[in-house]
Amino acid sequence: MADHPRPGRPVLLGQNQYGKAENRVVKITRHGATHHIKDLNVSVALSGDMDEVHYSGSNANVLPTDTTKNTVYAFAKEHGIESAEQFGIHLARHFVTSQEPIRKARIRVEEYAWERIDASGAASRHPGTDDAKHSFVRKGQETRLTQITYDGSSWEVVSGLKDLVVMNSTDSEFWGFVKDKYTTLPEAHDRILATQVSARWRFRWSDDEQPAPDWETSYEQVRNHMLQAFAETYSLSLQQTLYEMGSRIIDRCEEIDEVRFSLPNKHHFLVDLQPFGLKNDNEVYYAADRPYGLIEATVLRDGCAARIPVDLTNL
Amino acid sequence: MADHPRPGRPVLLGQNQYGKAENRVVKITRHGATHHIKDLNVSVALSGDMDEVHYSGSNANVLPTDTTKNTVYAFAKEHGIESAEQFGIHLARHFVTSQEPIRKARIRVEEYAWERIDASGAASRHPGTDDAKHSFVRKGQETRLTQITYDGSSWEVVSGLKDLVVMNSTDSEFWGFVKDKYTTLPEAHDRILATQVSARWRFRWSDDEQPAPDWETSYEQVRNHMLQAFAETYSLSLQQTLYEMGSRIIDRCEEIDEVRFSLPNKHHFLVDLQPFGLKNDNEVYYAADRPYGLIEATVLRDGCAARIPVDLTNL
Amino acid sequence: MADHPRPGRPVLLGQNQYGKAENRVVKITRHGATHHIKDLNVSVALSGDMDEVHYSGSNANVLPTDTTKNTVYAFAKEHGIESAEQFGIHLARHFVTSQEPIRKARIRVEEYAWERIDASGAASRHPGTDDAKHSFVRKGQETRLTQITYDGSSWEVVSGLKDLVVMNSTDSEFWGFVKDKYTTLPEAHDRILATQVSARWRFRWSDDEQPAPDWETSYEQVRNHMLQAFAETYSLSLQQTLYEMGSRIIDRCEEIDEVRFSLPNKHHFLVDLQPFGLKNDNEVYYAADRPYGLIEATVLRDGCAARIPVDLTNL
Amino acid sequence: MADHPRPGRPVLLGQNQYGKAENRVVKITRHGATHHIKDLNVSVALSGDMDEVHYSGSNANVLPTDTTKNTVYAFAKEHGIESAEQFGIHLARHFVTSQEPIRKARIRVEEYAWERIDASGAASRHPGTDDAKHSFVRKGQETRLTQITYDGSSWEVVSGLKDLVVMNSTDSEFWGFVKDKYTTLPEAHDRILATQVSARWRFRWSDDEQPAPDWETSYEQVRNHMLQAFAETYSLSLQQTLYEMGSRIIDRCEEIDEVRFSLPNKHHFLVDLQPFGLKNDNEVYYAADRPYGLIEATVLRDGCAARIPVDLTNL
Repeated sequence: MADHPRPGRPVLLGQNQYGKAENRVVKITRHGATHHIKDLNVSVALSGDMDEVHYSGSNANVLPTDTTKNTVYAFAKEHGIESAEQFGIHLARHFVTSQEPIRKARIRVEEYAWERIDASGAASRHPGTDDAKHSFVRKGQETRLTQITYDGSSWEVVSGLKDLVVMNSTDSEFWGFVKDKYTTLPEAHDRILATQVSARWRFRWSDDEQPAPDWETSYEQVRNHMLQAFAETYSLSLQQTLYEMGSRIIDRCEEIDEVRFSLPNKHHFLVDLQPFGLKNDNEVYYAADRPYGLIEATVLRDGCAARIPVDLTNL
Repeated sequence: MADHPRPGRPVLLGQNQYGKAENRVVKITRHGATHHIKDLNVSVALSGDMDEVHYSGSNANVLPTDTTKNTVYAFAKEHGIESAEQFGIHLARHFVTSQEPIRKARIRVEEYAWERIDASGAASRHPGTDDAKHSFVRKGQETRLTQITYDGSSWEVVSGLKDLVVMNSTDSEFWGFVKDKYTTLPEAHDRILATQVSARWRFRWSDDEQPAPDWETSYEQVRNHMLQAFAETYSLSLQQTLYEMGSRIIDRCEEIDEVRFSLPNKHHFLVDLQPFGLKNDNEVYYAADRPYGLIEATVLRDGCAARIPVDLTNL
Repeated sequence: MADHPRPGRPVLLGQNQYGKAENRVVKITRHGATHHIKDLNVSVALSGDMDEVHYSGSNANVLPTDTTKNTVYAFAKEHGIESAEQFGIHLARHFVTSQEPIRKARIRVEEYAWERIDASGAASRHPGTDDAKHSFVRKGQETRLTQITYDGSSWEVVSGLKDLVVMNSTDSEFWGFVKDKYTTLPEAHDRILATQVSARWRFRWSDDEQPAPDWETSYEQVRNHMLQAFAETYSLSLQQTLYEMGSRIIDRCEEIDEVRFSLPNKHHFLVDLQPFGLKNDNEVYYAADRPYGLIEATVLRDGCAARIPVDLTNL
Repeated sequence: MADHPRPGRPVLLGQNQYGKAENRVVKITRHGATHHIKDLNVSVALSGDMDEVHYSGSNANVLPTDTTKNTVYAFAKEHGIESAEQFGIHLARHFVTSQEPIRKARIRVEEYAWERIDASGAASRHPGTDDAKHSFVRKGQETRLTQITYDGSSWEVVSGLKDLVVMNSTDSEFWGFVKDKYTTLPEAHDRILATQVSARWRFRWSDDEQPAPDWETSYEQVRNHMLQAFAETYSLSLQQTLYEMGSRIIDRCEEIDEVRFSLPNKHHFLVDLQPFGLKNDNEVYYAADRPYGLIEATVLRDGCAARIPVDLTNL
């Protein structure tokens, strides 16, 4: 987006975008008596030829944010919601191709997962015939994310998740670090390693002519690779664990070129029980809130450019 | 707690309590290479002969809140954490029996659930030998709760949960209601029914001489009965669903005498797609935030007194 | 509310209530070009002859929660919003007197404060002619609260506030406390005392025949007495400060019979700078999140009964 | 930060940073009996020669995040906290100049404002001799922000605020917009305009040789210009209001080259009271939560490059 001078004033308008944020849409699909849910939070951001609305308040190029909301709901009916990614692609294409002043659309989606309540009342462990056909319970702690950007010619799809909380209760060390005059931390040779994963991964796909990935399968695989790498890495630093999580995705998921993580080190401090005559043999921990270490990095496929911003945002 | 006059002033001190709130304790137990986690948030509230600290600031009867925190961590080592309920019983008994001025202790616990990361990287669906031995992922949306109260002679144990989000995508109606001059709501013969369950249930057990319930098993059973009743009830009102959830617990769980629910009606409004020439055949919904219906009630075993307060609180 | 047996089942229905929670209503009043705002969050809870809706789902006695929402908005027009308390009284009276099955109404209100943007762009410090007539900025951290309960014959009005954050940077000590085997806390002879006040106060007024208090003036006075007592008390314990805050209200506010506080001790720990060769002369503190001391008590006028529940809730 | 190939694997490490986030530091300064508070939340992010810790877990170049926390507290004593910006400059310079592998430091600060409790118990309106000398109450809704970045040669200072909630109860219209097949919004000729301002502004200052701005005065001026521009602009669109807020800052604050806003349109919908036989003459509004319009733009001084990222983040 080029910067545009306003006539007669030394003040320019830079990047700008607008739209309706956090449209909560729930889509029920029926296969006979069996219902399926898609539960999304969709945010639309449009940009293009929007100088006048900033300079004079003329809305001649402005499709109302209320209309972008209506479009989300209408498209849930017209196109269904096969996946958050596919739904975002429908929306982004529509805004860019149907409105001349709009040159770029960015659709962000949060997806909330549900699982069936089974016949025993529990969330379904062994999905089968006894599962409730239209009764659901929210599943897991994490939220699935995607962001679709379209400029009329090429696509960028960045998917991800947040609030996936994981812990290794051993196989983590931290020692051999730099000591300066402000260092008091003792070295640790067996500690808890816990984090609340926030991750974003960028798909290679950018061209309508190419076949798109299977978005649903890809998400499950990326999530599993992250969990496996977290569980299997004997960790000497959270940075090392992060890199293992990222490189496993790049190694095994052809469709992904770039991953970025923001991993808070959720500190679990061993409680000093000596004043009470007790030995704490890595048994009793205090889970701290703040401050926390924060480890952030991008892992990339060789030959690819990094495009995911340094600061991850929620939607 | 009787009200006490302060000499020379027409101002009385009423019910009072103090302690350390939100002590976050994580306990790791090792069975060979296999680790087990208990992850709790423990709040202590003590009351008794505490007039002077209010009147004059004399702390002669005051065990510091910091000491109650230390006790939580020390007891995690000394007694282990078999269940949140059993852990609270140890703590409450300790404070009342070891400190003469303390007449009553109330321990509240939030418990956060974890499940093992399995060999495929997913949270374990079929627990077995391939599961990670010391790698975990947070499980579910809900938080388990308990409150233990002890006055030196009898116990009151109220357990519960919050943030269990459930939805029936059909089998819910709402009609035949009162209409006054402010009524505009149309009758509904097929709607989504969704709620975020907050529930508390009181155990009959109150006497050290009696055998205590199996707290872990009881929790799983109560939770399953709630989910089953929610899924199986063809609902004409959320009140009816609430009553079915509560009465199923009272019917089937001998150890429970009273249940109270606070059920927000998480409205899912059918979106009007007619302006866009589309028919919405119970497919596309808007999930609203506020306002929400709020349905609250106690369900009791015949012959038992209601003791759970009208307003449920989190811890 | 008496408990009612359901024919043929040993399961009773206890206290129950329902209504629409968190109706966000903003009322603009114009005095010429000068506008005034009332910004409320109103929650309605009704109870009465509601057994059948729980037992069978019959809604014959149920005024929809949607109607209670509509009534809030209609009453903002019909009666205006003179004060949160007066508005709640209009609503409670309406529900109890207009619907035969409804025996009791409880209206809870959160009120958000705004102040005028003044001519210099700042929030108005010296309200006057230069203030913007219809431009406002949200004021302060705290939220004003009230709860109106009416059973057709007498009124109970409990007002309050939450999230009023205060700090004394000196004139606070804590020593002379009980030491047991788990005590490690050193005595403190000069510490920071900070808390986030949650308070509720009950008015004596209960009878339509008596003149009602001036709700707006009373709120300002109670808030000021709390702040003054907090600032002026040389504190030996947070309990003592609490009692001084409460007794000042009872002493000076004729219209109030009872106050209850929930005061988290927002710990500010002196940082140990000795390892870095620095002396910390009560200058540098770490503001901790959890755990926190929690001090709760009721202060009463002599001869009055305590009616505010032990656990304060937000709305 | 260049991307580094890992020997033998087609996986690169991209931008990475680490440090301790959310160090809560409170600094008390005494001028005789009068105390002053600075209350900050400080986050440190360091980057540089950090490949090995990702590849092998070697911490040989890693200053522990715990040390960065200690440094924050020690510097509060050693340098005092004159302003959040100045404090961040001390910290950033220290990390880059004292640790060879660290090439870049980014310090983010949230600042919480306090005002004195005055002799009447109110927050001080006319600061003077009657104000409490060491008693404070948290002030306002907004949080002040700053981010300091240093690479060993030049500085970038971006300050800002979040959660400044403002409302104009008239002088706002919205009409003349694009209509497509999904548009249902009626035109509005008198509406409420309310937003929760999130803003970041970048200082021109980048060179130690130049005199630094007066950070405290600048903040007050920028905030006041924003509020004035919001209050005085007769608005035809929130974009226009945003541009007026930004251009007033660029026009009047020499030291600022760039401003970015993220302005949620906090919708206040006029309630339809016609079904109840009432006329709503712009008096009664429903304050909605989600969805909301979101208007974001950068306003720049002519000749300056835009450097503030599109997505603002909290710290």
